[in-house]
This record gives sequence, C-alpha cells and structure tokens, in this order.
Amino acid sequence: MERQATIEWNRSGEFLIVIDQRVLPHELRTEEIRDVDGAIEAIADMHVRGAPLIGAVAAYGAHFAIRTVVEGKEKRKWLAKAIDRLRSARPTAVNLNWAVDRVLDAARSATTPATVIEGSLAEAHAIMAEELERSRRIGEHGLSLIERIAGRREGPVNILTHCNAGRLACIDYGTATAPVYRAHEAGIDVHVWVDETRPRNQGARLTAWELREQGVPCTIVADNVGGHLMQNDMVDLVIVGTDRTTRNGDVVNKIGTYLKALAAKDNDIPFYVAAPSSSIDLSIEEGSDVPIELRDAGEVHFISGLVDDELVKARITPDHVEAGNYAFDVTPASLVTGLITEHGVCPPGEVLTFLTENGRV
Amino acid sequence: MERQATIEWNRSGEFLIVIDQRVLPHELRTEEIRDVDGAIEAIADMHVRGAPLIGAVAAYGAHFAIRTVVEGKEKRKWLAKAIDRLRSARPTAVNLNWAVDRVLDAARSATTPATVIEGSLAEAHAIMAEELERSRRIGEHGLSLIERIAGRREGPVNILTHCNAGRLACIDYGTATAPVYRAHEAGIDVHVWVDETRPRNQGARLTAWELREQGVPCTIVADNVGGHLMQNDMVDLVIVGTDRTTRNGDVVNKIGTYLKALAAKDNDIPFYVAAPSSSIDLSIEEGSDVPIELRDAGEVHFISGLVDDELVKARITPDHVEAGNYAFDVTPASLVTGLITEHGVCPPGEVLTFLTENGRV
Repeated sequence: MERQATIEWNRSGEFLIVIDQRVLPHELRTEEIRDVDGAIEAIADMHVRGAPLIGAVAAYGAHFAIRTVVEGKEKRKWLAKAIDRLRSARPTAVNLNWAVDRVLDAARSATTPATVIEGSLAEAHAIMAEELERSRRIGEHGLSLIERIAGRREGPVNILTHCNAGRLACIDYGTATAPVYRAHEAGIDVHVWVDETRPRNQGARLTAWELREQGVPCTIVADNVGGHLMQNDMVDLVIVGTDRTTRNGDVVNKIGTYLKALAAKDNDIPFYVAAPSSSIDLSIEEGSDVPIELRDAGEVHFISGLVDDELVKARITPDHVEAGNYAFDVTPASLVTGLITEHGVCPPGEVLTFLTENGRV
Repeated sequence: MERQATIEWNRSGEFLIVIDQRVLPHELRTEEIRDVDGAIEAIADMHVRGAPLIGAVAAYGAHFAIRTVVEGKEKRKWLAKAIDRLRSARPTAVNLNWAVDRVLDAARSATTPATVIEGSLAEAHAIMAEELERSRRIGEHGLSLIERIAGRREGPVNILTHCNAGRLACIDYGTATAPVYRAHEAGIDVHVWVDETRPRNQGARLTAWELREQGVPCTIVADNVGGHLMQNDMVDLVIVGTDRTTRNGDVVNKIGTYLKALAAKDNDIPFYVAAPSSSIDLSIEEGSDVPIELRDAGEVHFISGLVDDELVKARITPDHVEAGNYAFDVTPASLVTGLITEHGVCPPGEVLTFLTENGRV
C-alpha cells in the first residue's frame, strides 16, 4: 500500500489533498481543499496542524482566495477580509503569516490575471518544496547529534519528543522526527519516548502512528512521565519542534514543552529544538511577546477514541467544572541546548548572527 | 442529599463501605468489602487509592484476614499468604504496610479469640480515626499559609494541585485539599488549578468532582499547563500529596509531581507537600530507594468516559504501539518548600528532627 502523503496538490483538479488528522490513528481519512474557506476550516479546526504544514496550507488558501477574485467570483474587498480570516485561523504559528505574505507578494508582482493565478500557485508550490528541503536538511544535521551519542555507548539512543513535529506536521520527514528517521535509515538503534501530549494527544495519536508506520521503535508515555525517565538515565536526548522561535532564542511550542526542558536541564540532558528558519520570527524580541492561543475547553472535557471499531467522543470530566486550554508555552532560550535549523545547529542565543551568516536575513 | 463518605464501617453488618472511585465522576457507586480478598482487589484495582485511604482499607483487610482464621474458615498458614498478598497490592504507598503491621500487632497482643477479633478491628478503627485527625490538622496548618498570601494582595489565592490528595484519597478533608477546604470555609477567596493527572485522570475525575461538591472554584488543566501558569503569575502556591516521603525529605508522589516542582522552583513559587506522618518512611534514606510501580499499559491505551450517558472504555492510541505506565516519581527535597504535617510545617531536610521533637520517633 502506497503511503498517503500529508499534503499534495492535485494538478489536474487544481485542489489540495490533506490527511484529516483529527481521526488518526483510528482512521486514515483524506480531505480535499478547494477554496480559502476550506483552508481556514482545516487550519482552525486542526484537520491539519504543525507550523510547516499550516504554512503550506495557508499558502494554498491565499492562492485560492486570489483565484476567486481574479475569476470574478468575489469582489476585491472580499479578498482583504478572506485573508484576514486566514491569518487569524491560528494565532501562534509564525509560518502562517509568512506564507500568506509570500503568496500575496507573488500575486502583486504579476501583471496579468493569468500570471496572478499562476504566480500565486507557483509560490505556494515553492513554499511546500522549500519546507520539504528544510526538513530533509534538519534530518541531516540532527543525525550527527544522534550518531555522536550512539558512538559513545551500547544500546539504543533514547530520544524523547513532545507533540507531533513529524511528517504529519510538515510536508514530509518532519522536523523533530527528521533526525530520528535519518538515524533509523542509517541503521542506528533508536527508540523514541512519545509524550502523549494532552489535551489533543498529538503524540499518542500522530507521532506514535507515523513512527510505527516507518518501523521506528517507540513507547507512548503520559506527559507526566518524562521527568522520571530523565532522572533515571532513560533519555539521551530531547528533540521537539517549535511553532515560533523569537529573536532571543525563546521557543514557543506545544504546551508542556517548558516542563520537559526544565527536567532536561536538571538532569544534564541535551534539549534540542528542530527549527526550520521559517519558524524563526526575528520581528519578535522574546517569547513572552508571542500571543498564546487559548483553545476551546471542550478539548479538555471530551476525548475521541475507538469503541467497538466506532469513533466516539467521550466526556472525561465532571459536568459544570471549568477547564483551561492553553495551547502553547514558552521555553526560555537558557534551557535550550541548540536549534537544529536547515543550515546547521545554532546556539539559541545567536539566532540573528547565525541566520545572517547563512544569508537568511 | 447526604454526602457519601469515602469510607465507613457498617457496625451492624460488620463490613466496610467505600466509594468505587473508578466510575467517578460519572457515577457515584459504593461497594461493600467483606473479606481480605475484597480489600486486596479494591486496593490493587484502584477502586480506592490515596495513601491514607489505602492504609485504612488495608487495616480492615488485615482484620478480615485475622477474623477468617479465628472463625476457623481458613488455616493459620493461609493467613501469612493472605497478608503477603495484601501487602503487595500496591508497592509504593508506605501506609499500607504500616497499617497492616499495626493491626497484626494488635491481634498478637490479644489473648482470646474474641479479643483478637475485637482488638484488630479496634486498631483499624483507630487508624481511620487518626488519619481523619491528621487531615484535619494538616488543614489548620495549611490554612495559615493561604491566609498569609490572601493578606498580601487582592483577588483569589491560586493553588495548583496534582492528582487527588483530597477527601477521596483519605477518610475525609484530604491532605493537599484540607488547607483549601479550611480556607474556603473561612471565607478566603481560593481557586484551584486541577492537574488532569494522566493516565488515570485522578485530578479531572476526582479532585474536580470533590471540589465542585464542596463549592470550591476550580479549573481543570492538562498536566502540560502548570509550567505556563507559573510563568505567568497565575499560581501562588502548589500543594500536592505524597505516597511516601523518605528520611532525607524526598517526596514520592504521583508521576508528574517532579515536573511541577521544577516549574515552581524556576518561578519562585512555594511548593508544599501535605504529608501526614503516616506517609513519612524513616526506614528509607532517599527517594531513589523507593520501588516505583510500573502499572499496566492498558491505562495509557484506553480511557473511560461518558457517551450518551453510558460509561465506555475507548482506545486512544494506535494498535501495536507500546506504552510505559510509570505511576510515581521522586521530587528531590531540594525542590520542596515544606512538608505540611499534622504537627506543623517541616522543612524537608529536617524530617527526622521534626518528627522526634513531636514525639513520633
């Protein structure tokens, strides 16, 4: 059976096909996105998630919005509103705005209706291709970190990860998982501790699913467990993703990342963040300036699961009790060993210099 | 409606009634325990949990085992095996062995069959009464900590707790919740952040349920959230329980406690452990010497919840993936501000001196 891509463009039909990640791992369902509203819904309701993937879907969303206006189906003033709605579909990931801006710029520099459509679509394709290449190169740079640990001693290299910064968060390979996949391909014995990642369980549902699909040994643990594992020499390395890393190297990532970084520091375990340069936001000085999304409390009160082969939504809390669903937290740069970018590993305090040297600024 | 007690002795029927906590908060079901096997099952399968409550149920379990032999229903050599099974029903809580030993000692010092039965039962009653009194006094000592914070500024005192060290873990009042209940009764504005406490969700299911029942404002959060709350001045005080605290002040408690203690330290937030002296094990030097229970992986793969008013067990992970269910972790004494005991608040490094001064050693 061919592996279903996380995201792909259907050239003949001119629409996007994505995996609807809400029903994984119980069902592999795909979804066609044919207009900006489809893109907004897929992002806001988390059919798709993960900074690089959100960026790519948003890019196609912007293209769809532009095409709608060029084809005369909506007026120009509709476009500004549609783009605003697209931008606010998720507030925390930097890639969303970045990708939308690139597609809008490409459209602006075109001169005929046909080249506006073609140009904006080509830009979306380019964003997707670049993200793919970033993941591939993050995998190469991260591989050497894993090789170094594997060279030092017997037994598997134990890597802990939080949330899903895997191929399902990206175009392919993932960011945090890219080094793991490369190490596994290279025959290095790796084992991944997969944080469940409440409340949406992206680790247990998505990371475990994709690691199993690739044949990488892994063990799901409750988010509470990582500290104990680190205290007991059961973790060699932590690699997580990031939704936005600020100029000073603070890492905004899925809620709970900060707690794992504290435990890594307390136990002298390297804590790496796989950060494609598209997720680094030099316009924001520090993590506390990034808006932290407060999502619907229902995500805490209810959980999806399989009962007799049927996917159900079950209430897991008492009625009439509040729940607080903060979706991200800030890991201070001081707790981060390094950022694994597509250009190599960067100390978190030297983001600006590093990106400048690599021609990204 | 009368409030259902966590545990009560039925004098006329000579059996124990406990709340079967597995189906809370969706159903309030009680269970009768009439023999040692009933006690073992209730403890091992977590119909009851929490160190003080485990101790009390184990005490009655030991009494039942003794009664069975005295009444000639089993031979003496059966007793040793039954007691062994009772002792190993849960490996981490110190109260279990402590309570069983007390009941056995009481039986040994009796001289007639009737006084063996009466003496062992009286000892179980005494253990229950003493735990109740310990909780009450922990509430008094903890109240002054909360009063001090309330006196310093406007708005509610925000207390974060992990797992359930509430009245459902105890005879009544709880340990970690006892100060909260006392503060609420005293008219102090308190609000509790309730950690969900994966994988068994004791916070979301039990702590939130009992706080709501007592009218204390609370908000359930995923275990991942506490660090973010502490970084953002949304927590004034952490109070957790303990299954076993060792001679050097290390705190063994529900998995994930260590991560919250790290976050509290990083943000200068007081981290208190409500520790009745029955949970302090002077025979063990430090936390790393305590056996950490590895529970069934099914607790991670499946979750109980309500679908159309029916309680179901849903699969929430992919098939054919491992899960690691470590049930406790060790919070080093260096991260603990103080132990709230029934004798007052004790610095974690001075457990032995403190208990000696209070006549407990």
